[in-house]
Amino acid sequence: MAYNLAPLQNLIEQFERMQGIGHKTAQRMAYYVLGLSDEEATQFAAAITDAHTKIKQCKVCCDLADDELCPICKADNRDKSVICVVEDPRDVAAIERTHEYRGLYHVLHGAISPMDNVGPDQIRIKELIARLGDGTVEEVIMATNPTVEGEATAMYISRLLKPMGITVSRLAYGVPVGANLEYADEITLGRALEGRSLI
Amino acid sequence: MAYNLAPLQNLIEQFERMQGIGHKTAQRMAYYVLGLSDEEATQFAAAITDAHTKIKQCKVCCDLADDELCPICKADNRDKSVICVVEDPRDVAAIERTHEYRGLYHVLHGAISPMDNVGPDQIRIKELIARLGDGTVEEVIMATNPTVEGEATAMYISRLLKPMGITVSRLAYGVPVGANLEYADEITLGRALEGRSLI
Repeated sequence: MAYNLAPLQNLIEQFERMQGIGHKTAQRMAYYVLGLSDEEATQFAAAITDAHTKIKQCKVCCDLADDELCPICKADNRDKSVICVVEDPRDVAAIERTHEYRGLYHVLHGAISPMDNVGPDQIRIKELIARLGDGTVEEVIMATNPTVEGEATAMYISRLLKPMGITVSRLAYGVPVGANLEYADEITLGRALEGRSLI
Repeated sequence: MAYNLAPLQNLIEQFERMQGIGHKTAQRMAYYVLGLSDEEATQFAAAITDAHTKIKQCKVCCDLADDELCPICKADNRDKSVICVVEDPRDVAAIERTHEYRGLYHVLHGAISPMDNVGPDQIRIKELIARLGDGTVEEVIMATNPTVEGEATAMYISRLLKPMGITVSRLAYGVPVGANLEYADEITLGRALEGRSLI
């Protein structure tokens, strides 16, 4: 009965709109909000408005930024001759965690997927091409996801860039470190064999 | 790298505080907020403040309410001689969905659990006793959870109420309708045997 209360119903619906959040979880979340102190509830609401207002896209690499440029594009100590192209800002975070890469990034915000009506113009390919005009960039590493869409996007971009004299590379495929060969799928294992190196 | 942005980090932490929400889910949720339109983000933040400010506890039954009294306590067509005692407002909603119960409720907001430092004074037992003074209530149905804590709470309250001449009953235990006996645990099955009825 209590769930007929309009403000509560409204909050549950707000949570339910998020991908992967079902009705029960949304109820639990709304309930969490009711249990907060006044100050905590205000802070929670402010965090939403704040993040939404302050976080923009970097003018250069399209990664998330709280300024015109993102921290990586602003940094002096990055190798400006390499751009790593990813689908999503979360992928930038994942690659940064390896501490293996010192170049720049470009975030496409998606991958070409005709099934979902996403063509080359719906993702940030134009913006990538615009960064390559002045000859600073020598290599573009395609780090889109190893999915059909990610592959197609990598191939599409690679065909655009090769005539510009830019080296285009792709992340290596292979068995994940620490995994058990027995459980690797045949395609991954096939790619790992193909890409074997001398030891 | 993007996740070093303070407003985003803050929002992720806000979501992470909710029970059952891990870091990845919190990231996904924060990401959802960034993808909202300005209007949607404002509405989302307002829904939180709104629910938190407007939803209070009913002065009589301690269920959630957007007024002094909850809709059930306000209603004329409920049987005021029976009170069903539950741990949580969600339990009221669950019982209401059966359409089998026309009495009133009392929400304890928890169960006695010495392990978690919850004693009889931390839940709304005082408020329940206060409702029983005028002799209107003839029966109290204990519908606390069938857990150790729920049982202990039911026993505790039952011992307080019996000397007042009030009938105290407990929800029936048994096998869930539609379930397979094979999968019922032995305690439930034992209770179902014990509580068998003639057909």
